[in-house]
Amino acid sequence: MSATRTSLAIECGSAAREKLRKVGTANVANALLKRGFRNVYLLGLSPISTGQERMVGPAYTLRFMPAREDIDTMANYGRDDNLHRRAVEECPSGHVLVIDTGGCLKSAAAGDLMTLRMRQRQVAGVVTDGGFRDTPAIRETGLPAYQRQSAPPATPIAMHPVELNGPVGCAGVAIYPGDVLVGDAEGVVAIPRHLVEEIAEEALDAAEYEQFAEQHIARGRSIFGLFPATPESRKEYDGWVAAGRPPLEMYR
Amino acid sequence: MSATRTSLAIECGSAAREKLRKVGTANVANALLKRGFRNVYLLGLSPISTGQERMVGPAYTLRFMPAREDIDTMANYGRDDNLHRRAVEECPSGHVLVIDTGGCLKSAAAGDLMTLRMRQRQVAGVVTDGGFRDTPAIRETGLPAYQRQSAPPATPIAMHPVELNGPVGCAGVAIYPGDVLVGDAEGVVAIPRHLVEEIAEEALDAAEYEQFAEQHIARGRSIFGLFPATPESRKEYDGWVAAGRPPLEMYR
Amino acid sequence: MSATRTSLAIECGSAAREKLRKVGTANVANALLKRGFRNVYLLGLSPISTGQERMVGPAYTLRFMPAREDIDTMANYGRDDNLHRRAVEECPSGHVLVIDTGGCLKSAAAGDLMTLRMRQRQVAGVVTDGGFRDTPAIRETGLPAYQRQSAPPATPIAMHPVELNGPVGCAGVAIYPGDVLVGDAEGVVAIPRHLVEEIAEEALDAAEYEQFAEQHIARGRSIFGLFPATPESRKEYDGWVAAGRPPLEMYR
Amino acid sequence: MSATRTSLAIECGSAAREKLRKVGTANVANALLKRGFRNVYLLGLSPISTGQERMVGPAYTLRFMPAREDIDTMANYGRDDNLHRRAVEECPSGHVLVIDTGGCLKSAAAGDLMTLRMRQRQVAGVVTDGGFRDTPAIRETGLPAYQRQSAPPATPIAMHPVELNGPVGCAGVAIYPGDVLVGDAEGVVAIPRHLVEEIAEEALDAAEYEQFAEQHIARGRSIFGLFPATPESRKEYDGWVAAGRPPLEMYR
Amino acid sequence: MSATRTSLAIECGSAAREKLRKVGTANVANALLKRGFRNVYLLGLSPISTGQERMVGPAYTLRFMPAREDIDTMANYGRDDNLHRRAVEECPSGHVLVIDTGGCLKSAAAGDLMTLRMRQRQVAGVVTDGGFRDTPAIRETGLPAYQRQSAPPATPIAMHPVELNGPVGCAGVAIYPGDVLVGDAEGVVAIPRHLVEEIAEEALDAAEYEQFAEQHIARGRSIFGLFPATPESRKEYDGWVAAGRPPLEMYR
Amino acid sequence: MSATRTSLAIECGSAAREKLRKVGTANVANALLKRGFRNVYLLGLSPISTGQERMVGPAYTLRFMPAREDIDTMANYGRDDNLHRRAVEECPSGHVLVIDTGGCLKSAAAGDLMTLRMRQRQVAGVVTDGGFRDTPAIRETGLPAYQRQSAPPATPIAMHPVELNGPVGCAGVAIYPGDVLVGDAEGVVAIPRHLVEEIAEEALDAAEYEQFAEQHIARGRSIFGLFPATPESRKEYDGWVAAGRPPLEMYR
Repeated sequence: MSATRTSLAIECGSAAREKLRKVGTANVANALLKRGFRNVYLLGLSPISTGQERMVGPAYTLRFMPAREDIDTMANYGRDDNLHRRAVEECPSGHVLVIDTGGCLKSAAAGDLMTLRMRQRQVAGVVTDGGFRDTPAIRETGLPAYQRQSAPPATPIAMHPVELNGPVGCAGVAIYPGDVLVGDAEGVVAIPRHLVEEIAEEALDAAEYEQFAEQHIARGRSIFGLFPATPESRKEYDGWVAAGRPPLEMYR
Repeated sequence: MSATRTSLAIECGSAAREKLRKVGTANVANALLKRGFRNVYLLGLSPISTGQERMVGPAYTLRFMPAREDIDTMANYGRDDNLHRRAVEECPSGHVLVIDTGGCLKSAAAGDLMTLRMRQRQVAGVVTDGGFRDTPAIRETGLPAYQRQSAPPATPIAMHPVELNGPVGCAGVAIYPGDVLVGDAEGVVAIPRHLVEEIAEEALDAAEYEQFAEQHIARGRSIFGLFPATPESRKEYDGWVAAGRPPLEMYR
Repeated sequence: MSATRTSLAIECGSAAREKLRKVGTANVANALLKRGFRNVYLLGLSPISTGQERMVGPAYTLRFMPAREDIDTMANYGRDDNLHRRAVEECPSGHVLVIDTGGCLKSAAAGDLMTLRMRQRQVAGVVTDGGFRDTPAIRETGLPAYQRQSAPPATPIAMHPVELNGPVGCAGVAIYPGDVLVGDAEGVVAIPRHLVEEIAEEALDAAEYEQFAEQHIARGRSIFGLFPATPESRKEYDGWVAAGRPPLEMYR
Repeated sequence: MSATRTSLAIECGSAAREKLRKVGTANVANALLKRGFRNVYLLGLSPISTGQERMVGPAYTLRFMPAREDIDTMANYGRDDNLHRRAVEECPSGHVLVIDTGGCLKSAAAGDLMTLRMRQRQVAGVVTDGGFRDTPAIRETGLPAYQRQSAPPATPIAMHPVELNGPVGCAGVAIYPGDVLVGDAEGVVAIPRHLVEEIAEEALDAAEYEQFAEQHIARGRSIFGLFPATPESRKEYDGWVAAGRPPLEMYR
Repeated sequence: MSATRTSLAIECGSAAREKLRKVGTANVANALLKRGFRNVYLLGLSPISTGQERMVGPAYTLRFMPAREDIDTMANYGRDDNLHRRAVEECPSGHVLVIDTGGCLKSAAAGDLMTLRMRQRQVAGVVTDGGFRDTPAIRETGLPAYQRQSAPPATPIAMHPVELNGPVGCAGVAIYPGDVLVGDAEGVVAIPRHLVEEIAEEALDAAEYEQFAEQHIARGRSIFGLFPATPESRKEYDGWVAAGRPPLEMYR
Repeated sequence: MSATRTSLAIECGSAAREKLRKVGTANVANALLKRGFRNVYLLGLSPISTGQERMVGPAYTLRFMPAREDIDTMANYGRDDNLHRRAVEECPSGHVLVIDTGGCLKSAAAGDLMTLRMRQRQVAGVVTDGGFRDTPAIRETGLPAYQRQSAPPATPIAMHPVELNGPVGCAGVAIYPGDVLVGDAEGVVAIPRHLVEEIAEEALDAAEYEQFAEQHIARGRSIFGLFPATPESRKEYDGWVAAGRPPLEMYR
């Protein structure tokens, strides 16, 4: 396992992380679309707080299946080998815990104490296609967290933890362990692990071009010939970058 | 009816109310689960303002059925014997008006003037599995209010008020008059009236233990052996309580 | 086309606009109900920012149909005759761009640069029954914007722009070009263009009466005999208006 | 109660029943639309057997609310005062049992033995916006039955019977006791009780005209000037009826 | 327009039609997937009769938008320039009428007399993402018909016909006039018009290979090395075809 | 693995199978409810043919997750180590293949050739919470098959096979390998493997009692005192059984 973690660390190194923190999730999705990936955005999820920090990190997964009354009791939930609780203690620091509930909104994928523990362990965030309990207190922990809708009833009422760190689906998107999850104030996107470096590079470039375009548009320029970029506008952008990105008034 | 109200007052006395104001809705749901109640949380509803005060109070109910064009006119709505308007004037102070719309999102379960009137009459809150109109103005009244989604069209377009204070369903949960509704910044849970005292007691105990656990977790302790509570951690907690709940640094 | 725009300008002149800015969307819906219009509220949409300014303006429409892989490429999206991009440049100032996606939540109806351009062009707002991308940045542009749920993937993944300024459906409501859209912190309502003046007048009257009623209710008066208005309460209101709308304490 | 039943018998007398057996549910809905009723068809329900006989009869209603674990046990279900079982024994012969489940598809609104008992008691049919259990055996009883989707789990798992023969909603349509339900191989429509005679008359007339139109269309005539009826085509129809409805070949 | 029809006739000539009548809709979808088309199957629609004949023909479209009370009356419905009724009279013989309702299930996309007229006019079928009325009688006309769910209320209650034979969406699939619709006992698939000949050829080849594979599987052969076809199994198939498709017992 | 299969054979031996073939799925669900299992019925699934034979057998499972474009190609689908195709060849005879699609209705869980192969291999049936392709041809194979809704597009468009014979969820019900699935003309229910013998026994007893009750009801007896069984009616039943189950006319 440590071998895996090492390679993950390489694949989502500090340079890529730094770039991904500066881009929007929509930029990431666009860069993936150019490579043929049409289904990478976890649609329907939203951050529990619009003010939460940006989230970047490789996926560590937890899969739930439906509960059964003779197996999923509160006693079982309290055991130290319960996979739900183990996930909270074992998700590596810097990683994002991705919880596949099969879209279940009847009971909780996590609560405030689990979330606080993960924050303390330097987990990078938590994402589920189900819902959390204690969301007001989760907000206070500061851990970036994404869900479909709050689901406060106790987990064993509807869900059974069945696997740690295997391939899962979350909100209809394939997530393999080590894929990098990026979250902003809008939502979450997943990057296949072998593409992280190039997607980070390309998304950052696109985001920077968009900042250039934004300044022009804010000054009255049409989007035609500017957004999406044309060869001409791209050349204009390159010249502006070469000039040290001066204020547009001074440059033009 | 006054007999009933008296007994309600007893069953949700000031002590229980005070306790329930200090606990989260998830704590309440957990205490009910221990007694075999798995379906007490009004899933899918949310507060119209995250800043609204906590809501605790016995249920007074209003049931809607689908409207019919020859019965449900604006003229009918304006009559003083219209059950919708009577509910606003008759819901006892300290109670929560629970509006069963059958999940209808096509017209309004209440608006700002009705809400203001209830606030003025010291109603404790309003909960519906449909939606309100004038939600921006409802926020200003300060009345705790929970809905599924705003539904501004005039009530008679889709709904007919058919019964006051009978047993109803709301968001798939059984609500009998006098059951106690508890609402926080996450959602709403219902407590069967005969269990209010013991649930309040137990939920408060759980909430206080969780505050103890939270402090430990914030200082780096694992959730294993701490949350959920074990006999050992419980003993540790009791000792800490006996010591006057000192700052953890001083206690350990 | 210019003829049409002129008449639009007449039909939603500054007087009507001014009145509509002062009323709630629920007031508008009520006034339309009196004339037999039961389906005018765009249910299920919400503002992307509760702090955004009020929106009033005639509809300019864009219709999407499902995408097809050989037609809807990023290259096609970048063309200057792409109807999606043309809509952003051609929607007249003071108008509201209404985007009919057929309820598609798989890709974006617009993003931040398009929105910024519309803001800069003095478009009055943008409304879709699908979703936007870059919603955090759209909030910063200040353009009033309404959607069902964020939908950040690139537009051509799921949608093809097929028509400008024809009659469309949006959130199940018929929208003809020139109908006036009104948006507040709760949602959006559509007024058939030939009724704008009278609806504005009537909605404002209702809103002002409600402010009168609100003050009474805040002082403890029952809704009976006050809300909805009765002939007596209406006479009372008229007297108060004639007296210059004094503080109620002084008037009574 | 017997008074009520008598009047029901009058309002849905043998003549009206006979007419309604000959018309389609869509004919009934059209006749109601002419009187301003737009929401009378129980959309989304279907017959459990396309071969079942036509259903006509006044509504006798049963309302369910959500179950609660301490109340809704199998023991409670077996009691003779259980409203669910009483409904089966008390629904008057010739009436239709309308079961309002609030759209609940988690447990059964009725099963084969209940249905057989109702068939034996000459109940005219059973309609629910939830689902049945034992649908294969229900088909064999021959009782006309309409549901949304099979829901075989035991009733007390999710539903509690709370009222007999009050006003209810079913599939979003208002049903008052005594309203007449008409069902064919497509679905179910409800007629307000005071309109049964005139609706039966008008729907039969429309159905007979449609048979006339059908014969013309089958021989190649356009729907223009024929369907919907025009004053001219209506005169033509009247002449044909006066002629004894001869085969079209002989008539023309 | 006649030019267009001619070219349609060419593009869906008798040879292609004949082939498409012999293949399943799933075969067609597979052949399109090989060319990069992933969204061609009209998911969620089903034939109103499992016994209806196969449907093949170019699309002629009708688009609905939401109704408005002042426009969509029964009187308007009866006019000869009503696009809904014109569609029934103008859809060319051999074509399939594709009705885009925007997924509306509140009122009817067509009824039995319209359907009978189309059958009489040799229209090849009718497909909608909404629903029909009079489905039992539509079955008797023999016209292949596909819908989501019956929707018997009168059309003008919820829908307004707005365009004939433009590009539309139906069940989330792009349909351009002239695209060829193929329907079997399972559902409906759309072929872009410029690909009809090659898709027909390839789907037929795949269907014939599957018949070969089916005979082997029925005799106990594994799907490995047989289905999907391998180069070896394909060679084996070609030999068998060359041998005149003899019974497998005689061939092996 | 062979050890496991042996024990499965024991747990669902010929005696239990024989009994389960004679009972309805609703009988099985009732017997499980008595032991506290409330969530065992696979709601929303239906047989593809009402005439298909009864299904009884232990579960062998296949789990799908969402597809990704670079992994899930038709080439990958054709490989002999593809888990989807392996499931068809490896599901033991007498077992039921349970396919967990996560509720995905965008592509096929199986088609006719796979189904025919399973039928030939004496697999007992196939159940999915997604949908099949080629359902008309699947009907002809005679294999009992249950689905939510047809989903003909090629599997790799939306789904990736990720695990064989692990614990899964199907239609919201927990299915562990070896649990016994029972299917009738209404739907499918799952029995935890350690309870199969006793549930079979009890369900058969209940079904036989219901046949007794049915005969009485058919002759005009009330359900009170008969259904559900009372101690008295049970004694009556036992006497009738002891008498050799004579025709009721002769017995009474």
